[in-house]
Amino acid sequence: MTPRGVAILGSTGSIGCNTLRVIEALGPEHFRVIALGAGRNVPQLADQIARHQPELVSLDSEASAPQLIGELAKRNLPAPRLVFGEPGLVEVARHAKADCVVSATVGAVGFVPTLRALEAGKRVALANKETLVMAGELMTRAAERSGAELLPVDSEHNALHQCLRGEKRNEVRRIILTASGGPFRARDKAAMSTVTVAEAMKHPTWNMGAKITIDSATLMNKGLEVIEAHWLFGFDPDKIDIVVHPESIVHSMIELIDGSVIAQMGVTDMRHAIQYALTYPERRQTELPPLDLAQLSSLHFEAPDVERFPCISLAYRALRTGGTLPAALNAANEEAVQAFIDERIMFSDIPRVIETVMDSHRPSEVKDLDSILAVDRNARISAQAAISELTSSARVNVA
Amino acid sequence: MTPRGVAILGSTGSIGCNTLRVIEALGPEHFRVIALGAGRNVPQLADQIARHQPELVSLDSEASAPQLIGELAKRNLPAPRLVFGEPGLVEVARHAKADCVVSATVGAVGFVPTLRALEAGKRVALANKETLVMAGELMTRAAERSGAELLPVDSEHNALHQCLRGEKRNEVRRIILTASGGPFRARDKAAMSTVTVAEAMKHPTWNMGAKITIDSATLMNKGLEVIEAHWLFGFDPDKIDIVVHPESIVHSMIELIDGSVIAQMGVTDMRHAIQYALTYPERRQTELPPLDLAQLSSLHFEAPDVERFPCISLAYRALRTGGTLPAALNAANEEAVQAFIDERIMFSDIPRVIETVMDSHRPSEVKDLDSILAVDRNARISAQAAISELTSSARVNVA
Repeated sequence: MTPRGVAILGSTGSIGCNTLRVIEALGPEHFRVIALGAGRNVPQLADQIARHQPELVSLDSEASAPQLIGELAKRNLPAPRLVFGEPGLVEVARHAKADCVVSATVGAVGFVPTLRALEAGKRVALANKETLVMAGELMTRAAERSGAELLPVDSEHNALHQCLRGEKRNEVRRIILTASGGPFRARDKAAMSTVTVAEAMKHPTWNMGAKITIDSATLMNKGLEVIEAHWLFGFDPDKIDIVVHPESIVHSMIELIDGSVIAQMGVTDMRHAIQYALTYPERRQTELPPLDLAQLSSLHFEAPDVERFPCISLAYRALRTGGTLPAALNAANEEAVQAFIDERIMFSDIPRVIETVMDSHRPSEVKDLDSILAVDRNARISAQAAISELTSSARVNVA
Repeated sequence: MTPRGVAILGSTGSIGCNTLRVIEALGPEHFRVIALGAGRNVPQLADQIARHQPELVSLDSEASAPQLIGELAKRNLPAPRLVFGEPGLVEVARHAKADCVVSATVGAVGFVPTLRALEAGKRVALANKETLVMAGELMTRAAERSGAELLPVDSEHNALHQCLRGEKRNEVRRIILTASGGPFRARDKAAMSTVTVAEAMKHPTWNMGAKITIDSATLMNKGLEVIEAHWLFGFDPDKIDIVVHPESIVHSMIELIDGSVIAQMGVTDMRHAIQYALTYPERRQTELPPLDLAQLSSLHFEAPDVERFPCISLAYRALRTGGTLPAALNAANEEAVQAFIDERIMFSDIPRVIETVMDSHRPSEVKDLDSILAVDRNARISAQAAISELTSSARVNVA
């Protein structure tokens, strides 16, 4: 068996590192790392190059090249072919020997490379939620045209993919995304405005980056996942539900028309979903500890509270309206979350900023990536204006 | 679309009645009742004939015919063709117009008819656990030869069938049967001998017949299901596990080699599994209430306690040894359960009787139905001897 070639966009991030662990654990007979794209973490990238010897490496800018070459020289290694910036990432994503591209960059930097990978008919293991939230139509259209497979790495969507394996789409009544509920699952509505950044950064079950951790606290993360699920599986917003499940053991579920519910469960380790996305339609052994339900003892479920977590309703609204509104929502959310982390606005201001941006956005059809990026830029400007307004009115209140 | 023909063995029992409700709810365009086999409940059978107008009806004996004809005359209906006893049930099971045979008689009476249905290449929706426990090898061999499908109606096995739909057998690490744990899940080991019949008859989630309710209290029901699962899905005993789950919402699970767990859930209504067995590979709408996990709020899991419930270990032992031992176990269990219901032995004596019978049984290869029925008879004699011994020693203790 020839090993399958893998390219990783965002190799030094959390998903990137775990992808490399999965590939190592599976062994060289299954997968070979062909190309890596990373940002600024040069020492770690040098280690990855030393272990996996990719043919091609992309750095965010040419300025980082001497450092990488130096790091490799320390290890007595020649540098692989180096490329830079977005064109470099596109080369990584389109490498002729890459069968599968793991798209794990943060934010918009992975958009064009991911689209190019799909156009080239590669399997894309997608970990970058924003790609589908902002450009779901473009991405799925490209995949349909080329026959590329889009495999989700998000644990919820990966679970849905597994649940749907044996089922016909027209026999699915609804899909049910589970949500941990975040750290404020039980917090009073009145106390939502006093949430501190430190409190919001404590996620109960997953250890993640700052932005996604805040998204988990506002439940916007789940709202974005609703939009993502729509594009991945083609279900209407009315057929996508959320149930809060604090233990995050049931990763998601589907309900069939006969009332039967199929759930996928597992321990909370992202390597499961990464491996599944790489090896599908096959499954391979993992050395990860198996799920022990008897030891867990109990699993809990509750309805999400859209009163306390208005971000959920905003995401549904964006998806129902469609067009460019989800892109505007996503941009406004990123700005609002950053303003909260910078302690410029309150936790409960995050949905206010987003709503203001959405109210002023005139949704149009999604034409191309450029038009989406324009929406993204404008929504950020509009969000900053809303943030400034909140900040100045807060100052007035204080004065 | 031509409706599919259904024959029901045991139409006036709980599964039989629910099968007819399912067929009615699905509508005459999907299924037509071709033949019914019932025991002694003649008024109910007359009602069923009036509603469904089968072409053929089997009664347990010719002596019941005048009563049935009278009941039908009261409704101004002619009698359908009547047949009797085991040959009658075989006619029902082999009816040329029956595509699917629901095997729902209690005990050994359905053996030969079920085997004949499988030999004739009919789909068999199997609700009679004993059929596979006693004669699994014969039944599955017959199904393989004719290409007949064997669809389980037991909620656990039906769940496993659903979980396995999208998966390859060699990628399944183990299957996990859930068990409600019965009414004595939390009872002290020392207090197991003082269990009364009335206590044992209170099953926490399902409303069933007396024998299966006691089996649920001893967990022999789960042991029999382990054997049934082996024959239905071909997994070795080491790959079949049990987890106690008091709410009976997760009907069963499979664990894949990559650690992923797929579970099937639903409300506890046997019509789900019956309908699935009839409509597979299609699913159809049901009017049953959907599962509301948020309202259920929590699900619990614990390891089964084989110390307090030795019937589980006895069933595994019978399956591992194989041959005729499971048939002996099944017969001994039936006798022991009846002796407990008759208040001749204690609850904790049930496994003792079974173990005594198993220890004295010399397992041989399963050749044909006659040899199994001989094992059944002998094991019952042996069980009665063990019961008498316990009873007389108890008398001695009292004296």
